[in-house]
Amino acid sequence: MKCVRCRARAEVQLRAHNAAYCRPCFLFVFRRQVERAIDSERMFTQGERLLVAVSGGKDSLALWDVLADLGYDTTGLYVGLGIGVYSDVSHAKVVAFAERRGLPVRVVTLEDEGGGLAVPTVAGLTRRVPCSACGTMKRHWFDTAAVEGGFDVLVTGHNLDDEAARLLGNVLRWQSDHLARQRPVLPATHPRFVRKVKPLFLTSEYETAVYAFMCGIDYIVEECPNAAGATQLLYKDLLNRLEAASPGSKLAFVKEFQRTGQPAFAAAPRESPNDCERCGMPAYGTLCAYCRLVEEVGRKAAARAGAPA
Amino acid sequence: MKCVRCRARAEVQLRAHNAAYCRPCFLFVFRRQVERAIDSERMFTQGERLLVAVSGGKDSLALWDVLADLGYDTTGLYVGLGIGVYSDVSHAKVVAFAERRGLPVRVVTLEDEGGGLAVPTVAGLTRRVPCSACGTMKRHWFDTAAVEGGFDVLVTGHNLDDEAARLLGNVLRWQSDHLARQRPVLPATHPRFVRKVKPLFLTSEYETAVYAFMCGIDYIVEECPNAAGATQLLYKDLLNRLEAASPGSKLAFVKEFQRTGQPAFAAAPRESPNDCERCGMPAYGTLCAYCRLVEEVGRKAAARAGAPA
Repeated sequence: MKCVRCRARAEVQLRAHNAAYCRPCFLFVFRRQVERAIDSERMFTQGERLLVAVSGGKDSLALWDVLADLGYDTTGLYVGLGIGVYSDVSHAKVVAFAERRGLPVRVVTLEDEGGGLAVPTVAGLTRRVPCSACGTMKRHWFDTAAVEGGFDVLVTGHNLDDEAARLLGNVLRWQSDHLARQRPVLPATHPRFVRKVKPLFLTSEYETAVYAFMCGIDYIVEECPNAAGATQLLYKDLLNRLEAASPGSKLAFVKEFQRTGQPAFAAAPRESPNDCERCGMPAYGTLCAYCRLVEEVGRKAAARAGAPA
Repeated sequence: MKCVRCRARAEVQLRAHNAAYCRPCFLFVFRRQVERAIDSERMFTQGERLLVAVSGGKDSLALWDVLADLGYDTTGLYVGLGIGVYSDVSHAKVVAFAERRGLPVRVVTLEDEGGGLAVPTVAGLTRRVPCSACGTMKRHWFDTAAVEGGFDVLVTGHNLDDEAARLLGNVLRWQSDHLARQRPVLPATHPRFVRKVKPLFLTSEYETAVYAFMCGIDYIVEECPNAAGATQLLYKDLLNRLEAASPGSKLAFVKEFQRTGQPAFAAAPRESPNDCERCGMPAYGTLCAYCRLVEEVGRKAAARAGAPA
């Protein structure tokens, strides 16, 4: 198989793009794909300060790598979720990457800064699915770090597979409010929200894995131990079967949604948020989702402490 | 396991409904489910004349059986597609069922009434996927038989699995015009169209199979030989995997689409159709889809006859 750009021996085949590339051409095309997503969706400009949420996984580190190469002003943000060894290893990977590239990184550890509320504690006390508690908590600390650090944009490493799985989940239950907000760029809708963008929304997990491998990026390979059995993984499996039978299906699903599907749902605008009475972040009600969660944890922890052993 | 209605020994479990039934209660609930779909979607009334499209498979025969039991004025319509033994066997099953129940049936054989245009010939000459050619041809002969026979309603046996697979396909490509028209009731939009309804749209394939078995309905078990490898079967397989992991998913997908998703797409009305210049049926252009297909077949057959051997 030959590289479709330079006819050298291809090292990677991308069936969804009906293409194959040698290593230098793949790296060129990968960076260009990210750049095009940023430009065509008007995600951000060179003058803006970007906070890049990094988990230690391949997607966010590959993205940070590309953004730094493209000359953007980036700072990494690592939120330590307190998920045992998984968190320790991913923390170390992020710090090592930042040091190697000479890039600044901020670390928020939930046990310390989140009032001792690590994900397993919160999930256990509230009996929520860990991924649900984790999502609420991560969003809160991402938003807080972005606004308090004076950043213009919060950048996340959600890739095509993540977006397709999320879209499938939203569609299977026809959650029109979620469908209305599933976009690669979410403008700041409140003084304490910054713009949120996903430059990898058209880049597959496979592509970021190849990029990270080719660039020698050392990332945490393990899935989060809480993710086992998560619905997102079922959706990803279904979409992978579809993709195997019909390459390009995922890309068409997400791309065509942005073009055709999403506008049908975006028509109904969401009410503008209030200020959370406790933390001042945006809230649909008196408290934001995070403060509601913290309150629930406090209530249940007190009940458990008071209950007979 | 016990019947959830009468506590007798259950014979069938329906995980999507979190229920199990003995034989009499299943038959009661099955008929009531069809009745409720007819009433809640205002599909038709007792005074109207129904043309029921029957393929010889379990869905359409089970539906015809229920409609006759409910006292509706039904006539069966069998369209012989000319797909070899499959068509011969399904024809015989339909005629036998009609005789046994003492119900009238109309038969249209494409080789005779369709100008010799059976599905394999058309698919071969036009190089279309057989299911695509077949769909266009069946729709044409269904519509023609309904309007020329003076019927009020055309009833088809599309079940929940069919509707979920079709919905998934429409969603994966975000075909908003198809999504706008995927409804259990399509009103007549032209003098030569009658209303089209799908009373089984919330009834699973499994339920119709159980009903047909319990009632001793003799149906053709084989899938159409052309369906092998069809995209619909891939979508059904994906949805079956989803259903196994999360029972009730298919029902929620189709039901919630009708409630929440569909209105978002139905907003943009379709232009009203013209009259086909050749056959007078509704057309978006000068010719209807069927007459365009027939014209293409004629052109290609002539080219083939004129080409050197």
